[in-house]
Amino acid sequence: MKSLIENIDLLLEKPSELMNPANNKHCLANLSSPQVADYLKKDQRIILPIGSTEQHGPVPITGIDHISATGIAYAVSQLTGVLCAPPLNYGMAMHHLGFPGTMALRPTTYINLICDLVSSLKRHGFRQLVIINGHGGNKGPFLNALAERGDEFADMDFSFINWWVMPGLEKNIIKKYFAEKEGYHATPTEVSVAMALVPGSMVMPASYKCPQQEVSNENVGWVIPAKFREYYPDGVMRADFSLSTEAIGREALKQSILEICELLA
Amino acid sequence: MKSLIENIDLLLEKPSELMNPANNKHCLANLSSPQVADYLKKDQRIILPIGSTEQHGPVPITGIDHISATGIAYAVSQLTGVLCAPPLNYGMAMHHLGFPGTMALRPTTYINLICDLVSSLKRHGFRQLVIINGHGGNKGPFLNALAERGDEFADMDFSFINWWVMPGLEKNIIKKYFAEKEGYHATPTEVSVAMALVPGSMVMPASYKCPQQEVSNENVGWVIPAKFREYYPDGVMRADFSLSTEAIGREALKQSILEICELLA
Amino acid sequence: MKSLIENIDLLLEKPSELMNPANNKHCLANLSSPQVADYLKKDQRIILPIGSTEQHGPVPITGIDHISATGIAYAVSQLTGVLCAPPLNYGMAMHHLGFPGTMALRPTTYINLICDLVSSLKRHGFRQLVIINGHGGNKGPFLNALAERGDEFADMDFSFINWWVMPGLEKNIIKKYFAEKEGYHATPTEVSVAMALVPGSMVMPASYKCPQQEVSNENVGWVIPAKFREYYPDGVMRADFSLSTEAIGREALKQSILEICELLA
Amino acid sequence: MKSLIENIDLLLEKPSELMNPANNKHCLANLSSPQVADYLKKDQRIILPIGSTEQHGPVPITGIDHISATGIAYAVSQLTGVLCAPPLNYGMAMHHLGFPGTMALRPTTYINLICDLVSSLKRHGFRQLVIINGHGGNKGPFLNALAERGDEFADMDFSFINWWVMPGLEKNIIKKYFAEKEGYHATPTEVSVAMALVPGSMVMPASYKCPQQEVSNENVGWVIPAKFREYYPDGVMRADFSLSTEAIGREALKQSILEICELLA
Amino acid sequence: MKSLIENIDLLLEKPSELMNPANNKHCLANLSSPQVADYLKKDQRIILPIGSTEQHGPVPITGIDHISATGIAYAVSQLTGVLCAPPLNYGMAMHHLGFPGTMALRPTTYINLICDLVSSLKRHGFRQLVIINGHGGNKGPFLNALAERGDEFADMDFSFINWWVMPGLEKNIIKKYFAEKEGYHATPTEVSVAMALVPGSMVMPASYKCPQQEVSNENVGWVIPAKFREYYPDGVMRADFSLSTEAIGREALKQSILEICELLA
Amino acid sequence: MKSLIENIDLLLEKPSELMNPANNKHCLANLSSPQVADYLKKDQRIILPIGSTEQHGPVPITGIDHISATGIAYAVSQLTGVLCAPPLNYGMAMHHLGFPGTMALRPTTYINLICDLVSSLKRHGFRQLVIINGHGGNKGPFLNALAERGDEFADMDFSFINWWVMPGLEKNIIKKYFAEKEGYHATPTEVSVAMALVPGSMVMPASYKCPQQEVSNENVGWVIPAKFREYYPDGVMRADFSLSTEAIGREALKQSILEICELLA
Repeated sequence: MKSLIENIDLLLEKPSELMNPANNKHCLANLSSPQVADYLKKDQRIILPIGSTEQHGPVPITGIDHISATGIAYAVSQLTGVLCAPPLNYGMAMHHLGFPGTMALRPTTYINLICDLVSSLKRHGFRQLVIINGHGGNKGPFLNALAERGDEFADMDFSFINWWVMPGLEKNIIKKYFAEKEGYHATPTEVSVAMALVPGSMVMPASYKCPQQEVSNENVGWVIPAKFREYYPDGVMRADFSLSTEAIGREALKQSILEICELLA
Repeated sequence: MKSLIENIDLLLEKPSELMNPANNKHCLANLSSPQVADYLKKDQRIILPIGSTEQHGPVPITGIDHISATGIAYAVSQLTGVLCAPPLNYGMAMHHLGFPGTMALRPTTYINLICDLVSSLKRHGFRQLVIINGHGGNKGPFLNALAERGDEFADMDFSFINWWVMPGLEKNIIKKYFAEKEGYHATPTEVSVAMALVPGSMVMPASYKCPQQEVSNENVGWVIPAKFREYYPDGVMRADFSLSTEAIGREALKQSILEICELLA
Repeated sequence: MKSLIENIDLLLEKPSELMNPANNKHCLANLSSPQVADYLKKDQRIILPIGSTEQHGPVPITGIDHISATGIAYAVSQLTGVLCAPPLNYGMAMHHLGFPGTMALRPTTYINLICDLVSSLKRHGFRQLVIINGHGGNKGPFLNALAERGDEFADMDFSFINWWVMPGLEKNIIKKYFAEKEGYHATPTEVSVAMALVPGSMVMPASYKCPQQEVSNENVGWVIPAKFREYYPDGVMRADFSLSTEAIGREALKQSILEICELLA
Repeated sequence: MKSLIENIDLLLEKPSELMNPANNKHCLANLSSPQVADYLKKDQRIILPIGSTEQHGPVPITGIDHISATGIAYAVSQLTGVLCAPPLNYGMAMHHLGFPGTMALRPTTYINLICDLVSSLKRHGFRQLVIINGHGGNKGPFLNALAERGDEFADMDFSFINWWVMPGLEKNIIKKYFAEKEGYHATPTEVSVAMALVPGSMVMPASYKCPQQEVSNENVGWVIPAKFREYYPDGVMRADFSLSTEAIGREALKQSILEICELLA
Repeated sequence: MKSLIENIDLLLEKPSELMNPANNKHCLANLSSPQVADYLKKDQRIILPIGSTEQHGPVPITGIDHISATGIAYAVSQLTGVLCAPPLNYGMAMHHLGFPGTMALRPTTYINLICDLVSSLKRHGFRQLVIINGHGGNKGPFLNALAERGDEFADMDFSFINWWVMPGLEKNIIKKYFAEKEGYHATPTEVSVAMALVPGSMVMPASYKCPQQEVSNENVGWVIPAKFREYYPDGVMRADFSLSTEAIGREALKQSILEICELLA
Repeated sequence: MKSLIENIDLLLEKPSELMNPANNKHCLANLSSPQVADYLKKDQRIILPIGSTEQHGPVPITGIDHISATGIAYAVSQLTGVLCAPPLNYGMAMHHLGFPGTMALRPTTYINLICDLVSSLKRHGFRQLVIINGHGGNKGPFLNALAERGDEFADMDFSFINWWVMPGLEKNIIKKYFAEKEGYHATPTEVSVAMALVPGSMVMPASYKCPQQEVSNENVGWVIPAKFREYYPDGVMRADFSLSTEAIGREALKQSILEICELLA
């Protein structure tokens, strides 16, 4: 295990380099068609980073979800040798459309989009799809896409990984640094990761108080798309992003990359 | 509060009567169009019971999800006077199609179906839709339907209630009787409720051991539709339905109905 | 034949009990998945009650079409032993949307919905689908669903039964009691049946005169959805529902149930 | 009325000329855009001939349904001055696909197609659409298209005319010449009309016996698409097309054109 | 080759006769289903004329695109004996909807429509589809239809022929008579052909100056549907239709028919 | 103009840096929602790079089309200050699916995807969309998306730029270095650009001869998706990619970036 950690440390010396696909020999985009065919003879796995382009409140940037998924996926790909497909930078984020900068796909569009990508991969012989997801709202429609054409994809395996849902990350980062201030959208964990991957893109305020409504029971008054802005006036869901730092972002990247690599081992 | 509990007890003297729409004066189906118009002048809420018709393992019946949603919705309707729309007996259950008796809608079909029902209700002036849901798999596509046409439904409120996700029910029923044997599909709580609503429909075995695979991390090897039967060979998801009894079912009904009525108060 | 009539009489002693699925041992919803599999070894038929939730003029209730289809289907199921799927309470009723209480599906939604249900049944081995329909407007889109995926359903038989289109019913009920006052929507026959199935839900006026426009030729000025309310100001199509009685409803139920049972014999 | 009959006689001296759009000054296709705009200032009606391309049994030709609709529509257009849109030569004929030469649209395709054409016409200011239909199977999906977008088309009038459903035609042609041998598909009336419009295209056999199954009740064993060929082995539905003649075709054309013109008067 | 030219000359003695399907023995519409089956035993090719109904500026008629495709397809069919399907008179012409008389299909409608027609033909055994197209805007969505269901149509050949894109026509007609005044929409070549096929339908002005905007680079300010009328105020795209004559139309017809026949030889 | 060229030269000192979104201050993804709102107050333009992931023959890499579009778009964005949306890395490439590594969207999926992205941008107030496209096959479905919802997008301007279709590039690069060896897919121009942006990803063979079929007339035997591999056995369309060099790639980048910047000036 030591060697893996050392390699992660090496990669994270300059995290912003992770965002450059030109640096990654394991990007499907950087292989020729015959090279992909060669890869398939010995490995049928492929990583697909999926994210979103959507508002993250008053300070964090709109690209967080695809930036985090892409950076982590490229790192995992380089460390494990599993091929990585190009990132899908847009996702199901209709509930964020009330805020400038959000670019969202309707659920039915997203379902068809995922069906087409999975169908392409299956045709070539890929048999395990490792989805590295950066946006919670993608999970429902992604799984719906698999349900929509259940029989067609019956001979494939799918690992749907929300990068921030990892036991170690939960314990060593979220619980340790943010605890109940983590919240659900524009969380300090994801914001920190984006600060590490795009240094200089954000300057956190000294403090922040999230103005959301009180919600007594999650079953009632459930947040639907058109009500999002009413419930969460500045776009943040019970998270204190002001706690984010680039240093924690590097730690979180290391932890999540490590755990995902172990899952793929 | 006493009066409400008394009324619930009265209703639950013969729970199977709850399943008969002919007994319920607050069913939209039992009103004429002008009577609906009159109701709308003083109340703009409506309850919609949604369920599914799907396998629940070797013994529990296929109708559990719409039976439970319908029985609870009819009771809540009678107790609160909030109008109840006819139950939607079919849901998004593609992952159960490998087992006989399952009748499932594709996610895109379900999205369009919900859009049409909500659009109809909005047109007449309903402004709060209280969804009483009996099938976990409906939540994703239902919320996606609201996202699909976010702007159109912006002036409506939605309460999406999974009847089994209630603090009191969790504490007084699930934790008390089943704890870690509750599981995720064909749970003793939902089976008990169906036993109370359709007496005599099921005879529980003396004991049961769920044959599902070990899954170490929920993010990896995630259960997708076409793999469901492989992961859960008999259709049950880590639940011990053999603990179900009609008596617990009545208790659970009482608890869930009570909590939902309080939410609507 | 005598025995069948006796059995029908028995069932009709308390017609409202027919509406309760908990009373019906032949509901698919009340069987477990293995029980459905057992049934399929000896019988590949299944009944599907389809209806609608829509206005029926100033007095008759909105649920008539699914109430009648459900009551008749449950009775036929109990009398013949043919399994009965859960009722589909919503139908293609866009032309009634101008009146409060109508909940309608678009034709394309309905087509996809029916395709999914039939596809589910086919997968399990059902080979004859007996549709018991309570709403004239469903027939077109239902048959279109079968056309939409003609090849997929080629090895199944379909019996599409409008319960009110039966030679005996025509002669012994419609011609006898209502003749030219039967009309096309909110007819005294269907209203009577609903009065029998949901006793006390309607009080008929002493007399009624339908205010519809004169239409000289059915080919011209054809009624399209958006014009429905203009042509039929109170939602009734040339029918005198005031002639409806609970007693005639029981007779009509008996007659229709008898004829459908004979067809399935 | 005399003058109209004389004009029809004149047109029918050489019926095959009716099929040539180049002969018809009232074809929308033969007008420039500004000429259409001028027409709309004084008349907002437009005729749309819709047909099908489908098998009609062992001898009659595949184009009958669009040939008859087109010929009649062009004649009515010339006689009344109402503009005529180009014929839609393809229709919803999935149930005929088992026979060579049939070219069929799925119901959902047809619904979208009609929506687009009606939407185009509405945009320019047309307010009454007179559909002259040559194929029974089109009626369901055409009306469904109007239901699909009910609100959008609410300010338009629609006259859906099956050209063969006219009181005079029924009495003077069908009852007189064919009676119970008329049948439902490849009827001698429609075949005769096509013989008049495309002289020399068919040579009728001396006699013909339709080999279709006995069907005791139209509600059971209903003909669905994939079963069509099984029920009607040679594609004919209880019709004796061998009775068709060019002379009767001219009579039928005259009668139908006359009655439709009177409806538009 | 001489004989072919002589035959073309014969056909073009009265070009308007080309528009009448009743004159064409090789129309699929004029054959019975068994005759189509016989044809398929020796030839698996079929011609499909596709056009549009859309504005062509201040003088040329709206039907030009389907008139030209139909006339040429019927001629080629008669000369080569290749069967000709009924013309599709409507196309993807959304960008012309701002002008009266245009009847346009959305791209997704058009894609589904073409898929259904090709699927029908494939089912019967046709293996080469010769599309004779009269409207530039159809090419994109037609090829997209083939992409949409690539695998299904993999064993068919497609020849997509824009009738005005022929080397001989380019040299002998366009370059010779119109050169840079040909333009892109309402071109003198297509207008001339329509004048020959529908004599008397248009009277050209003595001269015409196209009022379109200057566009420096085709990549910028690209014409999208909703901007069409802004860029091309009178609907003409850099073409001088006033140069059109019936005589040139006959020449162009001859040239295009000849070249297409040679391609099919 | 000199300053712009100097700036381009500066950017191209290390072209692979262009691929890193972390380096680009004008990426929408690197701005917060309020920063996007601020931008919109002074500029309503946005660049959208669209590409594809598809085979490019035996040696060139699969990502060429999105790599080239992204690199050029990021450069133009940095040079002009126009905001750049995240790249769309997948496109309409169904005809390349026969070769490993291709990931393609169906035309209808692509149309809906583009509609959603454009609709999102319009909602926020963007009024000019500058599409920088790297894949010829995207143009048809992209424009179809704009046609699909013509009215909705009527108040936006669109510049659809195929980066390789620029007068200066044509003259100074294509004509000069490759002339008739440029071809249509896996062209030496696009391959050279990708070599410059992803150094070391490809090693060109000493020479190459494209094995494609002879095609005498582009109208006949047109290449449809399912036939692509038959017509172009190694995936290359009449192009000699072996002429590609990193140095020419830098020249081509400079030329194309320059011309696009001038267009946006």
